[in-house]
Amino acid sequence: MLPQHANAIGTAFGGTVMSWIDICAAVSAQRHCSRVAVTASVDALDFVAPLRVGDVVVLRSWVNAAFRTSLEVECVVEREDTTTGARVLCADAKLTFVNLGPDGRPQPVPPLAPETDEERAREAAAIARRETRLAARR
Amino acid sequence: MLPQHANAIGTAFGGTVMSWIDICAAVSAQRHCSRVAVTASVDALDFVAPLRVGDVVVLRSWVNAAFRTSLEVECVVEREDTTTGARVLCADAKLTFVNLGPDGRPQPVPPLAPETDEERAREAAAIARRETRLAARR
Amino acid sequence: MLPQHANAIGTAFGGTVMSWIDICAAVSAQRHCSRVAVTASVDALDFVAPLRVGDVVVLRSWVNAAFRTSLEVECVVEREDTTTGARVLCADAKLTFVNLGPDGRPQPVPPLAPETDEERAREAAAIARRETRLAARR
Amino acid sequence: MLPQHANAIGTAFGGTVMSWIDICAAVSAQRHCSRVAVTASVDALDFVAPLRVGDVVVLRSWVNAAFRTSLEVECVVEREDTTTGARVLCADAKLTFVNLGPDGRPQPVPPLAPETDEERAREAAAIARRETRLAARR
Amino acid sequence: MLPQHANAIGTAFGGTVMSWIDICAAVSAQRHCSRVAVTASVDALDFVAPLRVGDVVVLRSWVNAAFRTSLEVECVVEREDTTTGARVLCADAKLTFVNLGPDGRPQPVPPLAPETDEERAREAAAIARRETRLAARR
Amino acid sequence: MLPQHANAIGTAFGGTVMSWIDICAAVSAQRHCSRVAVTASVDALDFVAPLRVGDVVVLRSWVNAAFRTSLEVECVVEREDTTTGARVLCADAKLTFVNLGPDGRPQPVPPLAPETDEERAREAAAIARRETRLAARR
Repeated sequence: MLPQHANAIGTAFGGTVMSWIDICAAVSAQRHCSRVAVTASVDALDFVAPLRVGDVVVLRSWVNAAFRTSLEVECVVEREDTTTGARVLCADAKLTFVNLGPDGRPQPVPPLAPETDEERAREAAAIARRETRLAARR
Repeated sequence: MLPQHANAIGTAFGGTVMSWIDICAAVSAQRHCSRVAVTASVDALDFVAPLRVGDVVVLRSWVNAAFRTSLEVECVVEREDTTTGARVLCADAKLTFVNLGPDGRPQPVPPLAPETDEERAREAAAIARRETRLAARR
Repeated sequence: MLPQHANAIGTAFGGTVMSWIDICAAVSAQRHCSRVAVTASVDALDFVAPLRVGDVVVLRSWVNAAFRTSLEVECVVEREDTTTGARVLCADAKLTFVNLGPDGRPQPVPPLAPETDEERAREAAAIARRETRLAARR
Repeated sequence: MLPQHANAIGTAFGGTVMSWIDICAAVSAQRHCSRVAVTASVDALDFVAPLRVGDVVVLRSWVNAAFRTSLEVECVVEREDTTTGARVLCADAKLTFVNLGPDGRPQPVPPLAPETDEERAREAAAIARRETRLAARR
Repeated sequence: MLPQHANAIGTAFGGTVMSWIDICAAVSAQRHCSRVAVTASVDALDFVAPLRVGDVVVLRSWVNAAFRTSLEVECVVEREDTTTGARVLCADAKLTFVNLGPDGRPQPVPPLAPETDEERAREAAAIARRETRLAARR
Repeated sequence: MLPQHANAIGTAFGGTVMSWIDICAAVSAQRHCSRVAVTASVDALDFVAPLRVGDVVVLRSWVNAAFRTSLEVECVVEREDTTTGARVLCADAKLTFVNLGPDGRPQPVPPLAPETDEERAREAAAIARRETRLAARR
């Protein structure tokens, strides 16, 4: 984390971390869809610990669930202690991307094939989150 | 919107819009708290229409509800047609900020005094969203 | 104001403030012309008080006068004290924009209709500034 | 000029050029004062020809006149045709800088010693501009 | 790769790729040294294929060899085809970092323990490159 | 050097200096070729002294040698003491650029005509460096 990424109190400016999350998650979405995927929504993004200038920041993301023309991607942001290699969770985000065809319209997303219990639990939680969101909109 | 804000398909890069939303919402939070407020979470951020290079972009934000040491701020992003003055909603976000004291610890947020029916409805919806989030964490 | 906007002594880098002024004033020009307007000149830009990292910065701009194919826009930059809401004037600028047609050539600017005494005084002062500039060029 | 410096119609964004001018002129001011000089005003900045993506841009600046605690710096921006080496004037700016002492207060500027007729003419014109500005403020 | 990373002909601006390489390699250096390491030199950086706007870019880096107070880090930049997952090498760089102590002076670098034949070959090549550089300086 | 150019310990972020070097050297290459030249490699870039926030940074570059379709450009980065005008060498780089024709393929580079002993020595050293690189690749 460089000084240009900080806010006035020396920790990461929220908007900068959001940009990093958006890029990291978009790569997971595009790998799954094999084409352009655009951010449709940030469904949850929790900042749980601050990042400071000089920190090594690690972002990881993966697809939680594939819906008809959209998919949920989760992204975690960690601060790495270069002395010990220990990582501390700093932010966790769930985003929904839409798979766009060459005509700019949504098109079917390939199904996800969860293999482990953890992957199946993540998929189930993503489906539940989506139903809660759809219910809230009605 | 300048070319440096675009993604590879000529619309606004999601991360850039998120940065703008974070700054706009933080100002509303700081005005309410009369001091530094930091982003604790993005609870919902929906992109509903694209922004394109050359668009005039308007962001507006306000406090929906004040909790004990945090508050919910809503921010809407609109694209303005400079020919007609008409505005189109492009994104809507709800964020939670935490009010930090001089010691860097959360401190009480001044109460909100909603005056209109719309303000009271927004406060009630924010309280409901918060309860849903807290229930989901348990 | 974020650290990335500062100069080596912790106040706003002049070039950053100029960029903000150019964007804010261009929106006023484009709203008046209902189309693209490009910066032709900065006729005066006075920095009267410094901006510091962490300040909430407010920019406001309006059209002072409309000429044949150009118009003068004024932009003020203020620092807002979030504790009291008080604002301090930090910079004041007058810029001239040219209204460009689809062919990239200057085209007529809609007339301005000043309604208050203040608006009429601003228009008269802008006309006087323009005459002084044109006289200085001869 | 890189794409990140452009506006929506492919020419240089005015604010970017203003930033470059501010940096270039500040170096001339600091060399003359042998210390930190801050931008007090942009007295005139005329855009006379557009810059386009891919152009080689050349900025040159020099001190026109030294006043008691301030000085006028002129900066010209040129587009260079790398095929012929020919340069086209794109912008011309006059800025006033204030010489700041270690206590942050204005302090005397070393006198300028113009040697050629052109330098003396520039100094005289700068003095005249300053008197016009001071008269306009009264 | 976003439009803000491009040069005038739509491929990655060399300076942007160099910045990414410097950050990626610095993390490898800091992980090995368990503390701050600063870039001492770029010993070789070859651009072998262009990156274009919209490409997913992958950077990987590792320590080739540890010397007394410095170390050589290699970084490769690849373009990933999100349809097939295939990666194309776009750039390869070797950089030397110096391990700085709390007093800002070089201090010993922990030894590297290459385990595979490939790692031993890389270490030998790095040592040879360093001897060539030192010989060239004499 | 502005705060946005710094790393976490207050000196210039290596990647930023690399970007500046790439732009400065590219202008020398394009002037020599009278057209677009792209960075093919950074053959050596040595950081010999740190740059700090507030420093005036001066970059100079020139063509060392012209090969068939490529050329070596050298760029030096100096820190200028505005009090005394003294300059301290901070970085020295040698880069190879390729001259691209309208079809995007390499095309002949105009010959260089070294005139002084220093220019001839630079050309000879560049030729020797290139032979060493080519030999190392075989």
